[in-house]
Amino acid sequence: MSEASGAGGRLTAKGRATRERIVAAAAQLMFERGVAGTSTEDVRAAAEVSTSQIYHYFRDKPALVRAVITHQTEQIMTAQQAFFARLDSMDGLRAWRDALVELQRSRQCAGGCPIGSLGSELADSDAAARAAVAAGFARWAEAIAAGLRAMRDRGELRAGADPDRLGLAVLTALQGGLLLTQIRRDTVALETGLDAMLELVESYLV
Amino acid sequence: MSEASGAGGRLTAKGRATRERIVAAAAQLMFERGVAGTSTEDVRAAAEVSTSQIYHYFRDKPALVRAVITHQTEQIMTAQQAFFARLDSMDGLRAWRDALVELQRSRQCAGGCPIGSLGSELADSDAAARAAVAAGFARWAEAIAAGLRAMRDRGELRAGADPDRLGLAVLTALQGGLLLTQIRRDTVALETGLDAMLELVESYLV
Repeated sequence: MSEASGAGGRLTAKGRATRERIVAAAAQLMFERGVAGTSTEDVRAAAEVSTSQIYHYFRDKPALVRAVITHQTEQIMTAQQAFFARLDSMDGLRAWRDALVELQRSRQCAGGCPIGSLGSELADSDAAARAAVAAGFARWAEAIAAGLRAMRDRGELRAGADPDRLGLAVLTALQGGLLLTQIRRDTVALETGLDAMLELVESYLV
Repeated sequence: MSEASGAGGRLTAKGRATRERIVAAAAQLMFERGVAGTSTEDVRAAAEVSTSQIYHYFRDKPALVRAVITHQTEQIMTAQQAFFARLDSMDGLRAWRDALVELQRSRQCAGGCPIGSLGSELADSDAAARAAVAAGFARWAEAIAAGLRAMRDRGELRAGADPDRLGLAVLTALQGGLLLTQIRRDTVALETGLDAMLELVESYLV
């Protein structure tokens, strides 16, 4: 990791807490305003740290952005962990779908996907950020595929069902649905896209 | 329209050409670098016009951005017109899918959707831009739905098939697929998402 300017891996508990406060503040601001709309000064003020503290933990803004992507990926995986564990049944898939729709409603349909939006903004200008978002998406697709694989291995899905392919297809509809939710300011496309994918999964039920 | 600073609707042929040159240059730059990464000076240089010419046609940068969104929507609708006319058959749907994948490959998987990327960047900060992208997406979803509606009306899809719902679901997978293409730098997710939706449409064949 080229992320820390020198303190990486040898932080005290207090140092880790300060670093985490900076990342959390930057993540919130970048979720609301994008990376281009978030200055180091904005982050400094929101995290209530000094500029030199930011540069102690992050060499430059791209290093901070990479830490934000990692942070947001962990947030997603942690927040959805209970749902991921149940994606091995149609009931579990529907409960997850409902939770995703409800989350967007609670955010007034703003913000889009916390890592997808960063990926859209940075993919063509920051190769390391692009790779970090791609890695986050790979974990997300695998979490979906794992549930479908369990269904297939228990003989609940026909042998022709390809969990990896279906997992990636569901993530694709989810990402498009989150983008369209942000743009339409309603959850209809998210619901419609996910329901269509769940209908396809259901068509593989034995 | 609040777009033109005063000349709107009363442009000479030369004025229309200059305005179009500005919009096309801005569209290309914003596709490559995003809106935040494109300055009025960048547009001025690329379009080979003066700053006062830009401000003659566009009151401010948001007005230019709205014109870019309209321009990109028209470009998409025109470029895909021949495919849209054939979305009333599985062969036509597959030809469209193949063309979308090939287009992304020809762009080295960069850029994402010309209006979706703008929507992701601007949705939470520019209400007029958000509405313009939403209107573009509505036209796109309707073009897909029209093909499916023709199939249903000819009795080729079961009566239970909902062309509006399926059209929106296909667009959702397409948008997620374009985003994932940009982030993964391969077209696997785009292919997988669209193929899953076409498989669902196929399941409605009589």
